[in-house]
Amino acid sequence: MPDELINVLHQDGEQNGGTTVQRFWTGDYYNEGNGRDDIFDKLKEECGVFGVYGHPDAAALSYYGLHALQHRGEESAGICTSDRGEFHYHRGMGLVKEVFDQGRIESLPGDRSIGHVRYSTAGESKLANAQPLVFKYRGGDLAVATNGNIVNAPNLRRELEAQGSIFQTSSDTEVIAHLIARSPKDLVEAVKDAFGRLIGGYAFLILTNDRLIVASDPHGLRPLVMGRLGEGYIFASESCALETIGATYLRDVQPGELLVLDKDGLREDRFAQLERRAVCAMEYIYFARPDSDINAINLHSARKRMGRQLAIEAFTDADVVTGVPDSSISAAIGYAEQTGIPYELGLIKNKYTGRTFIQPSQELREKGVKMKLSAVRKVVEGKRVVMIDDSIVRGTTSLRIVNLLREAGALEVHVRITSPPFSNPCFYGIDTPDRRDLIAHSKTVEEIRQAINADSLYFLSQPGLIEAIGGHDGETDRGLCLGCFSNDYPTQTEFEDAKIGCGCD
Amino acid sequence: MPDELINVLHQDGEQNGGTTVQRFWTGDYYNEGNGRDDIFDKLKEECGVFGVYGHPDAAALSYYGLHALQHRGEESAGICTSDRGEFHYHRGMGLVKEVFDQGRIESLPGDRSIGHVRYSTAGESKLANAQPLVFKYRGGDLAVATNGNIVNAPNLRRELEAQGSIFQTSSDTEVIAHLIARSPKDLVEAVKDAFGRLIGGYAFLILTNDRLIVASDPHGLRPLVMGRLGEGYIFASESCALETIGATYLRDVQPGELLVLDKDGLREDRFAQLERRAVCAMEYIYFARPDSDINAINLHSARKRMGRQLAIEAFTDADVVTGVPDSSISAAIGYAEQTGIPYELGLIKNKYTGRTFIQPSQELREKGVKMKLSAVRKVVEGKRVVMIDDSIVRGTTSLRIVNLLREAGALEVHVRITSPPFSNPCFYGIDTPDRRDLIAHSKTVEEIRQAINADSLYFLSQPGLIEAIGGHDGETDRGLCLGCFSNDYPTQTEFEDAKIGCGCD
Amino acid sequence: MPDELINVLHQDGEQNGGTTVQRFWTGDYYNEGNGRDDIFDKLKEECGVFGVYGHPDAAALSYYGLHALQHRGEESAGICTSDRGEFHYHRGMGLVKEVFDQGRIESLPGDRSIGHVRYSTAGESKLANAQPLVFKYRGGDLAVATNGNIVNAPNLRRELEAQGSIFQTSSDTEVIAHLIARSPKDLVEAVKDAFGRLIGGYAFLILTNDRLIVASDPHGLRPLVMGRLGEGYIFASESCALETIGATYLRDVQPGELLVLDKDGLREDRFAQLERRAVCAMEYIYFARPDSDINAINLHSARKRMGRQLAIEAFTDADVVTGVPDSSISAAIGYAEQTGIPYELGLIKNKYTGRTFIQPSQELREKGVKMKLSAVRKVVEGKRVVMIDDSIVRGTTSLRIVNLLREAGALEVHVRITSPPFSNPCFYGIDTPDRRDLIAHSKTVEEIRQAINADSLYFLSQPGLIEAIGGHDGETDRGLCLGCFSNDYPTQTEFEDAKIGCGCD
Amino acid sequence: MPDELINVLHQDGEQNGGTTVQRFWTGDYYNEGNGRDDIFDKLKEECGVFGVYGHPDAAALSYYGLHALQHRGEESAGICTSDRGEFHYHRGMGLVKEVFDQGRIESLPGDRSIGHVRYSTAGESKLANAQPLVFKYRGGDLAVATNGNIVNAPNLRRELEAQGSIFQTSSDTEVIAHLIARSPKDLVEAVKDAFGRLIGGYAFLILTNDRLIVASDPHGLRPLVMGRLGEGYIFASESCALETIGATYLRDVQPGELLVLDKDGLREDRFAQLERRAVCAMEYIYFARPDSDINAINLHSARKRMGRQLAIEAFTDADVVTGVPDSSISAAIGYAEQTGIPYELGLIKNKYTGRTFIQPSQELREKGVKMKLSAVRKVVEGKRVVMIDDSIVRGTTSLRIVNLLREAGALEVHVRITSPPFSNPCFYGIDTPDRRDLIAHSKTVEEIRQAINADSLYFLSQPGLIEAIGGHDGETDRGLCLGCFSNDYPTQTEFEDAKIGCGCD
Repeated sequence: MPDELINVLHQDGEQNGGTTVQRFWTGDYYNEGNGRDDIFDKLKEECGVFGVYGHPDAAALSYYGLHALQHRGEESAGICTSDRGEFHYHRGMGLVKEVFDQGRIESLPGDRSIGHVRYSTAGESKLANAQPLVFKYRGGDLAVATNGNIVNAPNLRRELEAQGSIFQTSSDTEVIAHLIARSPKDLVEAVKDAFGRLIGGYAFLILTNDRLIVASDPHGLRPLVMGRLGEGYIFASESCALETIGATYLRDVQPGELLVLDKDGLREDRFAQLERRAVCAMEYIYFARPDSDINAINLHSARKRMGRQLAIEAFTDADVVTGVPDSSISAAIGYAEQTGIPYELGLIKNKYTGRTFIQPSQELREKGVKMKLSAVRKVVEGKRVVMIDDSIVRGTTSLRIVNLLREAGALEVHVRITSPPFSNPCFYGIDTPDRRDLIAHSKTVEEIRQAINADSLYFLSQPGLIEAIGGHDGETDRGLCLGCFSNDYPTQTEFEDAKIGCGCD
Repeated sequence: MPDELINVLHQDGEQNGGTTVQRFWTGDYYNEGNGRDDIFDKLKEECGVFGVYGHPDAAALSYYGLHALQHRGEESAGICTSDRGEFHYHRGMGLVKEVFDQGRIESLPGDRSIGHVRYSTAGESKLANAQPLVFKYRGGDLAVATNGNIVNAPNLRRELEAQGSIFQTSSDTEVIAHLIARSPKDLVEAVKDAFGRLIGGYAFLILTNDRLIVASDPHGLRPLVMGRLGEGYIFASESCALETIGATYLRDVQPGELLVLDKDGLREDRFAQLERRAVCAMEYIYFARPDSDINAINLHSARKRMGRQLAIEAFTDADVVTGVPDSSISAAIGYAEQTGIPYELGLIKNKYTGRTFIQPSQELREKGVKMKLSAVRKVVEGKRVVMIDDSIVRGTTSLRIVNLLREAGALEVHVRITSPPFSNPCFYGIDTPDRRDLIAHSKTVEEIRQAINADSLYFLSQPGLIEAIGGHDGETDRGLCLGCFSNDYPTQTEFEDAKIGCGCD
Repeated sequence: MPDELINVLHQDGEQNGGTTVQRFWTGDYYNEGNGRDDIFDKLKEECGVFGVYGHPDAAALSYYGLHALQHRGEESAGICTSDRGEFHYHRGMGLVKEVFDQGRIESLPGDRSIGHVRYSTAGESKLANAQPLVFKYRGGDLAVATNGNIVNAPNLRRELEAQGSIFQTSSDTEVIAHLIARSPKDLVEAVKDAFGRLIGGYAFLILTNDRLIVASDPHGLRPLVMGRLGEGYIFASESCALETIGATYLRDVQPGELLVLDKDGLREDRFAQLERRAVCAMEYIYFARPDSDINAINLHSARKRMGRQLAIEAFTDADVVTGVPDSSISAAIGYAEQTGIPYELGLIKNKYTGRTFIQPSQELREKGVKMKLSAVRKVVEGKRVVMIDDSIVRGTTSLRIVNLLREAGALEVHVRITSPPFSNPCFYGIDTPDRRDLIAHSKTVEEIRQAINADSLYFLSQPGLIEAIGGHDGETDRGLCLGCFSNDYPTQTEFEDAKIGCGCD
Repeated sequence: MPDELINVLHQDGEQNGGTTVQRFWTGDYYNEGNGRDDIFDKLKEECGVFGVYGHPDAAALSYYGLHALQHRGEESAGICTSDRGEFHYHRGMGLVKEVFDQGRIESLPGDRSIGHVRYSTAGESKLANAQPLVFKYRGGDLAVATNGNIVNAPNLRRELEAQGSIFQTSSDTEVIAHLIARSPKDLVEAVKDAFGRLIGGYAFLILTNDRLIVASDPHGLRPLVMGRLGEGYIFASESCALETIGATYLRDVQPGELLVLDKDGLREDRFAQLERRAVCAMEYIYFARPDSDINAINLHSARKRMGRQLAIEAFTDADVVTGVPDSSISAAIGYAEQTGIPYELGLIKNKYTGRTFIQPSQELREKGVKMKLSAVRKVVEGKRVVMIDDSIVRGTTSLRIVNLLREAGALEVHVRITSPPFSNPCFYGIDTPDRRDLIAHSKTVEEIRQAINADSLYFLSQPGLIEAIGGHDGETDRGLCLGCFSNDYPTQTEFEDAKIGCGCD
């Protein structure tokens, strides 16, 4: 990524006390510590979106739908409805159930809505960035909710500022509203033009006084499904949200597609040709809920197949198989079934831990006070343990978990990872650390094994992963974005055209 | 006011539940009921502003300064500081002491700041409108705090929207930020151009990363004073805020003046010629705190003189003089001193009443449960009472107070008002009801007397008011805005040029 | 007071974080700093009580009644109702309007209730001490609310503990509940026996499942009035609460009286002979609201008479008279009327200051940041000022106020106090500092004058005070408790019988 | 249970609005609906306790320890510490992480403490019942925390009330404090006498200014373990809390044991002979965390054995095995391993659901909006499903889950329960519905199968359960309390002696 994208400094005061955050858009990603998950050192999804058109309970459905997508963003939640030419919205910091109560939902009338959950980082946690963003423009009201990332947002922002635009947030999403408002064309054409200028991976929901517009980036990087409930249409980042509200799944929104819903019904349109479908592989491996389907593939089943594939590629004899909760339980059971080694609850997570939990002091931590994860002594003591996890980012978490198992008496700990080494940043909406902090960027597998104190370590092969995910027939490898493993990004051409480097030298 | 300004509909969702408010900018003013003050039916000031340049305790001084200006706005409060090229701010709903705590103040570093308190109405009470408003633009950060009203804001807003601007708030203040951001000139010239386009009455504080800009409208309608504390400059809506923080009063900011403070110190400039000074008379009569001075006239003293003048113009023999608390105590004492009739505490206000107070049900109210005001039986029973108040808006409150006195045994109630009949709306920042709801617009004094159930009623004459305020030597009547009494507005010419009617036919 | 009462240590954990407080019951009173009022160094009333029997809106009336009594206690508030054999109650920290909302009031059904507001001190501020206290005993439910102090409570408590009683609070009030529960007699007799054992000054409201019992100590030290609203009876610490709810005043509850209200109506009884009536003089001088009457004497009028009497006893020529708000405004007006010197607003209090207000740092305070009180420069500059206040406790506040006036340019400051020197502690419910900290205990008037930096100082004479209060015909001095001025306490005999010293050597 | 225990009415006002609850102590148990878990119709544990003696971080350790025990009580949490003769405590409604923050923990100094988490029911949810309860008595301060139930508490309470005791709560725990305070003996003897009077199942922690006393009922019904951390002793309801803080497990506290810790160290004593050990079987089946051990038996392993045993006793051919999350996952994996049928994620629980979650309206529920549990269509569609659960209480939840699976396309649903039919109430601290509402009390297995719409249903046999739990050698059935299955209660003799019926005719 070229210099112009580096060191873009975002200065933000905020509702909650004016914290200022420096966030770099490439190369030197700032590690935004998350009070909640730091020990787990996990990748974080950017967001989840949920839209309704034509159902009288739009706000209540959004509440349950966003609740089902809560794992995609725990920082803030918001719903905007449109009712007889007027917008009604509420946004707040926290979980869906914290932001909304009965009264709030009832104060949001209307049969169409868009909703959003946003991921959590301590540094940039602020109300001003909560979505949906709502604007007033020549055409009336405009609300926008998005999941993903626009790589060239800083360039577009500078261009708009040069023309006299003022911004309220540091959010990429505000850029699209300006592009639409400044276009002299009619709304749908303005939206298509605006999307044509974006480079990145995203799912967009746009609400106006009389329309709902839905779009997915030209490679379909971020998941987005369409369903039906009664007479209404439902859109959601994951199919589990359809299931939760009792809606019927229709289909996944296609790459480059633009759907317009208004009083004339649903109109299927495109703002870009489908060039290369590239669904984010990490959605399959880690992010999406196990009961969701992406492109008709169930996630729990795919993860069990990853576990089985790991057993095929790298069998080790052992006494017990355990998975790191919650994400790797499915894979661990797959591994156990494939090998006949019993699956046991070797690690347990305290389900009550959350944002407001007091972290133990360094001193207490050293004395043995556990965070939210514990090893179960009776299960692992004197045993050879196979520990399944989904990825290794910095390696710090893996080391801690291996050590937890050893302190609880495990004789051997064999680590099996359901993804290839994660060695490159994501540009499409997953919050990844700086490439230099990715342990797989600078270390060999053997070096990582030593760093995490494991007796053996194996990463699922890229072909094995593609096979396990399945369903991407023919050129399966081209149906997934594997950029974080392969350094081969689907928008490589656009990066070059825009003279934006991805650091992929 | 012409049609184009009538029926401008502001649709606002909001942070707190998406209440939608219709607010008309002329003719049909919407009566925004205020849970707190409805029984008093009082006029409401729009806001108070406070600025610091060059003092290390900028945020803490703002806290105490805004606290001293709290009576000018109880709805929301905010402070924005600038520190080494970064903005820090916090805004919230409620009183200064509710919005800020020690930690909040400490999280606002810097030696310059602007702060704001906003008036309270139930309908439009929303965080999004809390000031200072903060924007990002080509030149960096920009924060704006204002007191007053821009009459042609809707026109300017439509013009900007037509050029593709998007708005986040329904506030007039956002217009000025757009005008500044769109100007290709340097900041100070851009600001001067922007002010040149405004019609109205206002005091403005504008903070950028390296400057504080202060301005008062061309007629000086809203008060704004300048003081000094140590090396720093202080700006405040009223002088009581200077006194509170121990600052020395320097002078009132002059009509049309533009002050620029930066690393080169204070520069005195103008964006408009002073044509006709016109300070809001209601500031003298009611709004400003009695311990404030406006143009070197102390308010308590001026109000005592109004009371004395009333006694001269309309003496009535009586047993006791009482004032409606808190605003009319000074005038009541003046009346008592002039007449020799003893001043007594005939009415008392419960000082604990506030926003969260549960209003008595209609049933309990009818049974005699008092709101925040009570008559003191022992003081008024069997007495002829002179009751001093500052104004009559709709008349409903006056009726209730007269009746309270009668129920407590007053034999006669003679009402004396320290202002002429209030028969026209204000266009410069005071929240007035629709002209049709102003009792003095449609009724004679005798009809009003009957409507409020008084034994006699007298309004201070316009010359008497001017005399009592004093200090406006020579053409004193031209030194005050008396538009709400006289229907003669200082921006009459601009109204005509802009083809904006004031309804003053 | 003998040794056994000295150094009684109360250790209290609390709801709000387990603060531990040492409070001595005599001699060495602990100075419990109150964040709110420390600069004013004011005496604090212990509490206010409010009771309803036989009105369907018992809880709502209590809300408005307690609100009217809020000045008697700002720390906590509580209401307990009885409905068809069941108790319902709610208590909380804060003002009445903070503790109760619509839902809370609606959750308190029943036609009888007792309510309480408690005074505020930082040290002992805790939910556990909020009243009404509610207990379960052999006879069912029992709730108690009290205003005042039981001098021999520590002795009674020790006696009860020796018999195996356990206590939940450090409140005197819990003692009476134990005494009642342990008596084998029927309730009314048990209550009479229990009161017979108490030494002190108090007003008591006791609610059981079927009765309301009301009592005043044998000397009537604390005020308590009875009124009527519809079919119901109302009891309140001050008559202003009757006025607020529209109730008719019947009479003051008499010393030693015990009123029982049940399905048979009101029964008037006694638990003690009236020996010497002794109403607290400080209620007249400072505590009670100016619109209240005690024993048919209006407080505002009495205070005006105190001001007049001061002018008679100690006239000084001056330019303006001012009162320390809010308590001394009435007296200042009296002084002004008597002398013809104009009353002016020389001191002003910020009405928004309250518990959550951030106090200025020592540094800012030295730089001139004012707390809640300011002098009005325009009014006092170059003037000779007579400043009226109600009492001088430690002298620190008086010094600050005199200095405020001098800094604002007053040429001379003549202090006139509407009470005799306060040189002895109160044992009956007013929170006074240790005798050694009472400036009048150790210093002459001239020494005090120097200490507070006044040009002259005069304390109202004791006969002048009695005369100004008035209405206590015949042996008027015996109708008031003047112990804090005279060291002559109404329960002197009981002190001696119980071998309790009052330190009055 | 005899009449005298029936219809004991507890009238409680409360901190949070004075809700009144009727709770019957026998026969007709009142069904206290829990907003959180009603769809699951689950049994609820009464509480969890945690104690520290001799560790400088007592409060912080209690925080983490109680957090590990959070599943035993989500309603309220509290910690009381003792430091140099003074108590410090804090209690509140909500989860441990909600009740305590850093400041609260730091305000609790001392090296010894007791803590408590309390179960949640909507009806009786009140602060007054939060533990530890803290009292003042002759000997100083006394705090008590308990898990379990005292069957004869109402009798003891009446006896104490007859002697003049007053109560603050409706909690059984207050009875023991009275018994101790009324005893003339020294503390330890008084405690032993007091426990000697109790009938029931309980674990007790008692803190005084200088001692910690720990006791388990004579049959060891409720679990309680002892551990060591540095120089300190730790006590906890479950061993997972020891593991969480890094403490070493020493042993389970024995039935009838009384441990005294003071400056002389640990003294092991008894207040009762061990007659018949009877650990609650439901702790093994459902309540305790899978990573805890009770009497050295790991719960996850025991539950896997229950699943295996079910497969042995009642094998059915099927396509997938699934468990009802979270409690039955271990057993489902056991069943899968025993049979070779793959374990799949057929049911998924939304981990974010909690107290404040808005329940869907009946209408939305009927339209298909799911509560917190969903079936995974891709996993169960067209499959024969074995569904493992731990118990059936009323049957309503089982019916809903079976229907969820069917609606998601399951061809057959075979329900396997890891406990015998639950047909009798618990008297020892588990909140069970009225016997008439227990489906197994009135229906045969076949009738239950029909009621829950299952294709087949099997309950684990009592011998099979005992075998699966294991470790209770010799007379294993006498080492467990199986009263809820067998109607044979360990305190049968005491019931008869005290003429208390258990309804076990």
